[in-house]
Amino acid sequence: MADAGLADIFLPYNILGRAKLERLLALHRRVILSVTADSLETIEGLAATFTDAGHRLSVLVECDTGMGRCGVQTANEAVALARQIDRAGGLAFGGLMTYPAAGRAAEAEAWLAGAKQTLAASGLACERISSGGTPDIWRSSKASVVTEYRPGTYIYLDRYQVAKGVGSLDDCALTVLSTVVSHPTATRAILDAGSKALSSDTLGLADFGELLGISGARVTGLSEEHGTVTLSGDSKLRIGDRVRVVPDHCCVVTNLFDEVNLIDGDTVLETLPVAARGRTG
Amino acid sequence: MADAGLADIFLPYNILGRAKLERLLALHRRVILSVTADSLETIEGLAATFTDAGHRLSVLVECDTGMGRCGVQTANEAVALARQIDRAGGLAFGGLMTYPAAGRAAEAEAWLAGAKQTLAASGLACERISSGGTPDIWRSSKASVVTEYRPGTYIYLDRYQVAKGVGSLDDCALTVLSTVVSHPTATRAILDAGSKALSSDTLGLADFGELLGISGARVTGLSEEHGTVTLSGDSKLRIGDRVRVVPDHCCVVTNLFDEVNLIDGDTVLETLPVAARGRTG
Repeated sequence: MADAGLADIFLPYNILGRAKLERLLALHRRVILSVTADSLETIEGLAATFTDAGHRLSVLVECDTGMGRCGVQTANEAVALARQIDRAGGLAFGGLMTYPAAGRAAEAEAWLAGAKQTLAASGLACERISSGGTPDIWRSSKASVVTEYRPGTYIYLDRYQVAKGVGSLDDCALTVLSTVVSHPTATRAILDAGSKALSSDTLGLADFGELLGISGARVTGLSEEHGTVTLSGDSKLRIGDRVRVVPDHCCVVTNLFDEVNLIDGDTVLETLPVAARGRTG
Repeated sequence: MADAGLADIFLPYNILGRAKLERLLALHRRVILSVTADSLETIEGLAATFTDAGHRLSVLVECDTGMGRCGVQTANEAVALARQIDRAGGLAFGGLMTYPAAGRAAEAEAWLAGAKQTLAASGLACERISSGGTPDIWRSSKASVVTEYRPGTYIYLDRYQVAKGVGSLDDCALTVLSTVVSHPTATRAILDAGSKALSSDTLGLADFGELLGISGARVTGLSEEHGTVTLSGDSKLRIGDRVRVVPDHCCVVTNLFDEVNLIDGDTVLETLPVAARGRTG
């Protein structure tokens, strides 16, 4: 029975190995859970762990619709894995899942529509099709075969999303509060936020972040504990000033901190732990 | 009096703001402590906090010897700050500090030698000159004016150090243990180590890491929870295999984990907390 305190949980990832499968089974007893698989090996591990036909684990097949990461390459592979899932006593084929390549939602849509048809022709119902990616959600069609969308970055937004046309810098909820620790030349200021605070993940953008409220001030270089800000000659930054940096990629920045402060202006409303960070193993 | 359980501590950073200065003062009461400064503002903050002429805080002047980060730009600026430090009742000028640009140790040496002469000509003794950077330590001269060296990466080494000629992959002590979670095509395998485990900081190298013991297998792409390994067609990697990845830059990788396992072969000898990670504020 699902725990009323926890919503349905979707873990769109191949879970492998005894230790993680045991934890997954324990979680399955508490919540309504679904996972993904893109290989026989992953399904075999799940099938050996989940054996209760009265409380099956929902397993979606991950599809590579253009991202070039995980996922089956063809609709026929999806059919083969769906059959394998349904053959296992404690599993149930739950549908298709993808993470589409950025800007290629139409390609993903065509892939998934074709796979749904192929599944139907094989007698397999596909009621759930899960896609993701924040920037493209705004361009997704109402006529899509996609039944659910996983927008991860949406909760905060970041400089990459702004570059993709999703809102403005002022819509970005996550900023890194930093101090100007040095101002060695008229055009160079140094922040105490480096790659351990902003991450080096630019997602292809120029620069590593942008200072809120200081026009044109960008973090142009990072070392571990230093962020270099290149300024025009008439900088108003002073040593000791505290500034807010909007990072390029909020997902990896969240992972760098133990706590996040929820603020309203300069007032801290609440401090929350970042519970999942460091739990990469 | 210094605590016998703690060695001398050098914090080569501008410490600013009341909260950090108070913590610094508390630390100064327990250990033999020195810090750096590259501005009047930093010195003023230290001078207002450290006022005990019987137990002065040693302050070195940080010099920009080519790195383009923190540090005074000229020897005359170093003299001015050294005088400012000595003028404060609770501070003592401790010497010069730099982090030289990679591969430009000779330039840093010339800068520091010149500054030492300028200080001497101004009647200021400079007994301590601190430099750093692991790759260049092997090329540092015995006749150097540098009196101490801060080799940070040295404790682990990484792919960047190997690329700079410091040892081989087998000399790298830090690896990220990862599982092959997908193998969608003959030439593509996916690890469960992404940018949250390996970081996106390549220090300019191609690729994000290298698999130990699997010739030519490199992590060619990262997303947050996935690492893409590009393989030749005859891959021996199997889904579920555990592999060790040597990252490009061990400093930022250390910062991504709560714990580090000290191993001998496959035996875990000890698990240590990474005490300073997440403490970026």
